Amino acid sequence: MTVTTPAGFAAAGVRAGLKSNGNLDLALVVNRGPLNAAAAVFTSNRAQANPIIWSRQVIADGQVSAIVLNSGGANCFTGAEGFQTTHATAEGVAAAVGVDAGDVLVCSTGLIGDQLDRAKLLAGVTAAAEALDTSDEAGADAAAAIITTDTHAKTAAYRSAAGWSLGGMAKGAGMLAPGLATMLVVITTDAVLDSAQLDAALRSATGVTFDRLDSDGCMSTNDQVTLLASGASGVTPDLAEFAEALRELSLDLALQLQGDAEGASHDIAIEVVGAETEADAVEVGRSVARNNLFKAAVFGNDPNWGRVLAAIGTTQAPFDPYAVDVSMNGVRVCSAGGPDRPRDEVDLTSRAVHVLIDLHYGAAEATIYTNDLTHDYVHENSAYSS
Amino acid sequence: MTVTTPAGFAAAGVRAGLKSNGNLDLALVVNRGPLNAAAAVFTSNRAQANPIIWSRQVIADGQVSAIVLNSGGANCFTGAEGFQTTHATAEGVAAAVGVDAGDVLVCSTGLIGDQLDRAKLLAGVTAAAEALDTSDEAGADAAAAIITTDTHAKTAAYRSAAGWSLGGMAKGAGMLAPGLATMLVVITTDAVLDSAQLDAALRSATGVTFDRLDSDGCMSTNDQVTLLASGASGVTPDLAEFAEALRELSLDLALQLQGDAEGASHDIAIEVVGAETEADAVEVGRSVARNNLFKAAVFGNDPNWGRVLAAIGTTQAPFDPYAVDVSMNGVRVCSAGGPDRPRDEVDLTSRAVHVLIDLHYGAAEATIYTNDLTHDYVHENSAYSS
Repeated sequence: MTVTTPAGFAAAGVRAGLKSNGNLDLALVVNRGPLNAAAAVFTSNRAQANPIIWSRQVIADGQVSAIVLNSGGANCFTGAEGFQTTHATAEGVAAAVGVDAGDVLVCSTGLIGDQLDRAKLLAGVTAAAEALDTSDEAGADAAAAIITTDTHAKTAAYRSAAGWSLGGMAKGAGMLAPGLATMLVVITTDAVLDSAQLDAALRSATGVTFDRLDSDGCMSTNDQVTLLASGASGVTPDLAEFAEALRELSLDLALQLQGDAEGASHDIAIEVVGAETEADAVEVGRSVARNNLFKAAVFGNDPNWGRVLAAIGTTQAPFDPYAVDVSMNGVRVCSAGGPDRPRDEVDLTSRAVHVLIDLHYGAAEATIYTNDLTHDYVHENSAYSS
Repeated sequence: MTVTTPAGFAAAGVRAGLKSNGNLDLALVVNRGPLNAAAAVFTSNRAQANPIIWSRQVIADGQVSAIVLNSGGANCFTGAEGFQTTHATAEGVAAAVGVDAGDVLVCSTGLIGDQLDRAKLLAGVTAAAEALDTSDEAGADAAAAIITTDTHAKTAAYRSAAGWSLGGMAKGAGMLAPGLATMLVVITTDAVLDSAQLDAALRSATGVTFDRLDSDGCMSTNDQVTLLASGASGVTPDLAEFAEALRELSLDLALQLQGDAEGASHDIAIEVVGAETEADAVEVGRSVARNNLFKAAVFGNDPNWGRVLAAIGTTQAPFDPYAVDVSMNGVRVCSAGGPDRPRDEVDLTSRAVHVLIDLHYGAAEATIYTNDLTHDYVHENSAYSS
């Protein structure tokens, strides 16, 4: 139930020796057609890794035959040598699987600022090409090869009664905030669609799923969400059904990323309603998601709604602070900008926390997904590179 | 060496019983003239506490005779009852020291969303008025009465050879980020200045001091920096000397706040040079100051410059990411957006950490002061209200 679920795709995950722990660290997904249509969204961080710079060129014509992804190093801020490594990786894939290097996307994840070992990477590409398979196991190996501080691989799939399917894999864990795409995600489909249709569906889906996951407010330099279509089912899907299925699968993967975010002990859904515009609702939700005092309070199971109001007061969204209601896990602790139910009625001990903010200003809404700020987050991120 | 250093000011700090630990929790500073000129800057958070709403009206005519400050409760999002408490506090001060209630500033700090005990507060005002004194001890008591999670009181003073002086007290600790003013600060002077002159000097000083302290990215609902002038020295100062002295004293207090920020183990100065405008330099510095991954890395003494570049890539400031240099504690770990000196040459074990970012784009610069993200920060803020 992963990227090999749709017909027309083969995958592999191998040990290239890039990760110091010896785990799987190089994934290859090949689209065997008949179509090679694709779309991708990239991090909006202006500091972009070499694989992002390369992949932006590859996707320009909407045709992609293969995507290669490595963990164990981001290949970001590694200069001309780093870019040549990315280029050589694409050339290596092209030679090994018989496609054009200009149709090979490259993704990398790991520490910024260190050169990747090009020889190990290219040997890994050769091994992955030899291991390519359409089995579930091969798809699972690919999903395992892209994780970094994730504790487990993330995959999802969807089968339409009309005869086409979707499959996906994702990695996240840290530096998890959007602006488009903030993780490595590969989604495959055997539906018959062209790259423009894929692009529209992908942007529509990521805008309300991956883009609304904001675990730690830190935007990555490397992240990319890619959608590949083989057309191997021979079925042209209903576009609305396809868009909805893609959105559901993207939300599934996004929530898997939230549930495995570095050090998190709570998965927090911040639902903002009564906003004038959807963009306002997103801004308000994100301001809470990025407020360390609120996030630390949730870690302590403390329904500190004052920190919610202090956070939303920093936004530009139109509302009257003294009209706002805030509920936590179903208990309205603040109404009209003042105290309502006692704090001790709120139980925040569950992993899932729901914060409902009603701005009482308009009819737009949005939900932002975040995590709490924990000792383990500090520990993992103070020890990451050492 | 505090608010009672300049002539014309009396102060007191008493136990009103608002703090559960029984410490000093109510401060009163009275300006005995002959002038009662004043200026103030307030939090730019749209969620504003009742004392802020009140004090904005009081300062409008540039005349202030007294300022009363309580810890043990923020009186924020406490509705009409909370505003009446603020109003009653000002009336209480007016009656006790013989001034107009419309010339009494009120400041509060502590937990948001709880009502202050009005009876205790008013009894405290009476006790403080009786304890008013011009001694250093009285000024020290006032400084002690405004702290919350601060581990010690912060004061500073300056004496001009021309015969006038400045004195100040401040509290900070958590929810420490600016947009004007993000803490409670009272600065007194016996120089002869009108409120317009005070306002200009204060805005000029806070803009490059308190406004550039960004410990945890969280903007408070209650914070206020107030400057009171008694004119009691009889000396009209050189305006340039006064502005410079006020800036130095403000920086002194701001760095004291940084050094005592909740749970911090490092004081980080992020110096941005080579920016097109000063605003760009501030935006770039602040993006690093608010990046949890960078802050956690500094806690772990890890010179992870990739996280610096990932942070500044999210800004709108003009620069080429592949032209940027980054030094940490004097070691240039990144030049032209690529690796330079090895990370292990950087020693981050000292409390003071200096990050120098050269954008190589223009001639403007700014320094942002922040702290690391530590286990103690998470602990203090997950346990604050419980």
